[in-house]
Amino acid sequence: MEKIKVLTVGAGAVGAYFTGRLAQTGKAEVSVVVRSDYGTVKKNGFHILSECGDFDFLPAGVYRTAEEYPDIPDYVILTSKALPQIDEPALIRGAVKSSRTTIVLIQNGIGIEDAVAEAFPENEIISTIAYIGATRTAPGIVRQKGSSELKFGRFGGGDSIAGRLLAELYQGTSVKASFVENIAYFRWVKLLWNLPYNPVSVLGGGLDTKEMSDRGPVETLCRELMEEVRLVAAACHVELPPELVEQNIEYTRNFPPYKTSMLVDFEAGRQIEVEAILGNVCRLAERHGLSVPRMRACYTLLSALDRKHREKRPG
Amino acid sequence: MEKIKVLTVGAGAVGAYFTGRLAQTGKAEVSVVVRSDYGTVKKNGFHILSECGDFDFLPAGVYRTAEEYPDIPDYVILTSKALPQIDEPALIRGAVKSSRTTIVLIQNGIGIEDAVAEAFPENEIISTIAYIGATRTAPGIVRQKGSSELKFGRFGGGDSIAGRLLAELYQGTSVKASFVENIAYFRWVKLLWNLPYNPVSVLGGGLDTKEMSDRGPVETLCRELMEEVRLVAAACHVELPPELVEQNIEYTRNFPPYKTSMLVDFEAGRQIEVEAILGNVCRLAERHGLSVPRMRACYTLLSALDRKHREKRPG
Repeated sequence: MEKIKVLTVGAGAVGAYFTGRLAQTGKAEVSVVVRSDYGTVKKNGFHILSECGDFDFLPAGVYRTAEEYPDIPDYVILTSKALPQIDEPALIRGAVKSSRTTIVLIQNGIGIEDAVAEAFPENEIISTIAYIGATRTAPGIVRQKGSSELKFGRFGGGDSIAGRLLAELYQGTSVKASFVENIAYFRWVKLLWNLPYNPVSVLGGGLDTKEMSDRGPVETLCRELMEEVRLVAAACHVELPPELVEQNIEYTRNFPPYKTSMLVDFEAGRQIEVEAILGNVCRLAERHGLSVPRMRACYTLLSALDRKHREKRPG
Repeated sequence: MEKIKVLTVGAGAVGAYFTGRLAQTGKAEVSVVVRSDYGTVKKNGFHILSECGDFDFLPAGVYRTAEEYPDIPDYVILTSKALPQIDEPALIRGAVKSSRTTIVLIQNGIGIEDAVAEAFPENEIISTIAYIGATRTAPGIVRQKGSSELKFGRFGGGDSIAGRLLAELYQGTSVKASFVENIAYFRWVKLLWNLPYNPVSVLGGGLDTKEMSDRGPVETLCRELMEEVRLVAAACHVELPPELVEQNIEYTRNFPPYKTSMLVDFEAGRQIEVEAILGNVCRLAERHGLSVPRMRACYTLLSALDRKHREKRPG
């Protein structure tokens, strides 16, 4: 059987881990587009330290841009951060030369598919949610902790042969992968946690999950932010059951203390995903005429804080 | 004429400046209670660098505690910061031995008189608002910029001979002093500026007044916070005219950029006045059943940030 051709664009820790696991199956030929770590990855590939087994991921091809990829890929998997200055269509355009290429977006937040969907109306888009703890600890080195999961779904909802096939490819790996027909629902469910806890962890001066589980004002603010998320989701025809709010509170209370990914990025001086997590949701609220005062206050403060913080740090 | 006896307790930059100007008139004998700078002040007094004229302020007596003060003062002037762990009655009790001593509170915020009023029901309390830019640049050294103003008023409202006398003592000095019958109004007016701009400057990562005048989301948040202040003030029978909101926005836009006092304190690693500026107002809102979501979100985030920030800094 011919191998399935995959091109991973923006292969950071998350991209390297997930598509490295795909390469391990032997059923996919995975190439990567990397920028900052190009030299190291070209020479040595990725070395991945994982609680589910360390492994080396030697991509079939290592490129600086998508244009350099010589083939028509079956899948282009974009795993860059969702940041406003990133022109996602431009990042992948060079490799999306045929309508039979499926575009897979592995990113956080809401509204992250819009630009790509508009730029490539002929291509199927698989919106993907990743549940993973992975960090790039040095060029080409990725450390992954705990379990990892991928949920694939057709952007816009419904069935997808390409989406199901991708999920099946992960069978037998340590990645729990599934295809769902209502990916938007799961995206909002993930946001229900991300929207309160990520911004509050940063705005509160560096709070870990334990510190946000104060059974007091911070938890109350997180709860109220979740209710605002439910309101916007409902306007977008996604009903988030009310009990999810308390489930998130309980989960956060009982999990060993950890820093949110946004806090980790912030403390490392990296730009944080303010727009994908907060901005797009505030704009949806506005479009539907909904009042989300806490969310909007956090959005305003976090945008300013993110800008100031990066101004203060060189680079 | 016998000199009026004044004891200044907690003589930081603001206390030293204002009561130093009082001593300069020759009509008041001003002693001070100081803690951290006791040695320097005992030896050399205060050296005050002011745009309205430098001067030395040599207090009649310098004490470590109010108990050491040997007399019955006409005025005890408390100028410490309004912080929850400061037991204000305890700070002045040693000097308030008679009901003819007037207690003057020069502090920011709302609800800052309650503890002292309860502890000394027989004494008249003069609630005072200070408008000043003054910093302690070294032990015993104070730098004052721009104009300075004091508004005295009887706590609870109405006339006060002691309050009027104090305002009159400032006649001929560079301090613009006045007595008002409705000090609560002016306190809320000052809060209308302080409540948005102080917290937003800190939560936004260190924004100066120019950066907060963005004609965009930050200004909008400040405007909305002011509307929440107006709501609480109205419930406390203080009507803040709606046009004050836009006046504050205009003032802030047009003033040369500066850092709020809360931001200055925060950046110096000092505890900030979260309770006097935000906490007490949120509690008033709660008592009156008012929804102030942005104010409460800022209160929660700023409390957490203040705590975390000081945890991270030694001392």
